[in-house]
Amino acid sequence: MIILGLDPGIGRTGFGVIDTAKQQYLRSGCLTTPANLELADRLLALGQDLERLLAETKPDQAVIEEIFFGTNAKTAIATAQARGTLLYILRKHHIPTFSLTPLQIKSRLVGHGRADKHQVQTIVMSRLNLAAPPRPDDAADALAAALCLADHQVTMPYAQV
Amino acid sequence: MIILGLDPGIGRTGFGVIDTAKQQYLRSGCLTTPANLELADRLLALGQDLERLLAETKPDQAVIEEIFFGTNAKTAIATAQARGTLLYILRKHHIPTFSLTPLQIKSRLVGHGRADKHQVQTIVMSRLNLAAPPRPDDAADALAAALCLADHQVTMPYAQV
Repeated sequence: MIILGLDPGIGRTGFGVIDTAKQQYLRSGCLTTPANLELADRLLALGQDLERLLAETKPDQAVIEEIFFGTNAKTAIATAQARGTLLYILRKHHIPTFSLTPLQIKSRLVGHGRADKHQVQTIVMSRLNLAAPPRPDDAADALAAALCLADHQVTMPYAQV
Repeated sequence: MIILGLDPGIGRTGFGVIDTAKQQYLRSGCLTTPANLELADRLLALGQDLERLLAETKPDQAVIEEIFFGTNAKTAIATAQARGTLLYILRKHHIPTFSLTPLQIKSRLVGHGRADKHQVQTIVMSRLNLAAPPRPDDAADALAAALCLADHQVTMPYAQV
């Protein structure tokens, strides 16, 4: 099964694609939108990039990080608008999509929710036999989410978003 | 010119459509999604309803309320995901879309930002020659946003979202 992980953002959405049958890394990177565009134009660009990625990688399932609600409300709102667009498009393409919080991803992958980025990267590298950490961080987070979904489908299905 | 006003929400998105040439009310109401559906399904349903509304009313421009960031972060995040989907679809249909905060709408329509719902409704009724207040409140807010956009385009264009 091909799983697509997404770490949503309006400027940068990390993505990671794995093949669960072979525990194999397929692809990762970032979908980026220029900051000088208006919000609606950025959402359109993000949507078009996701549709291209879906056509190229043909995922069976997707997993998308929940919004981390930190101190910056403006950032959270912008990220949520990007996430809404991504979810809408995934649903339109009939891709079952699951939702995990950053805390859930760290807990399940590393064993505790206070894991730092370096620990997450190390486990992603080890699990997917990568010689170097996936760059940028958003891509590593997206691969971590994809690995989490792959693991837990063995034991129990997640609630869909 | 036909203007569509939108007051976004995941459960209820108010809409109001006016004809600026005749200062005429055309249509208003709510796009609703069932609370028992998963988020991605609700976004798909909302998107389909918006596309139907666009096909039926053919707006030249749209205006969508900014997220009011109150005490309930969870509601704001859900509303923002709905708003992202709406903006993406409006942009996909090439409809220039503008953005106004609730404060801007009240200030410009009533004259001060502390206006209550009743005052907004009264002005919407008077401006559009309505015998009764538009129901529900979300529809009245959407009509208020549309009237604001109509007024200010006479004097100055808004920045697009």
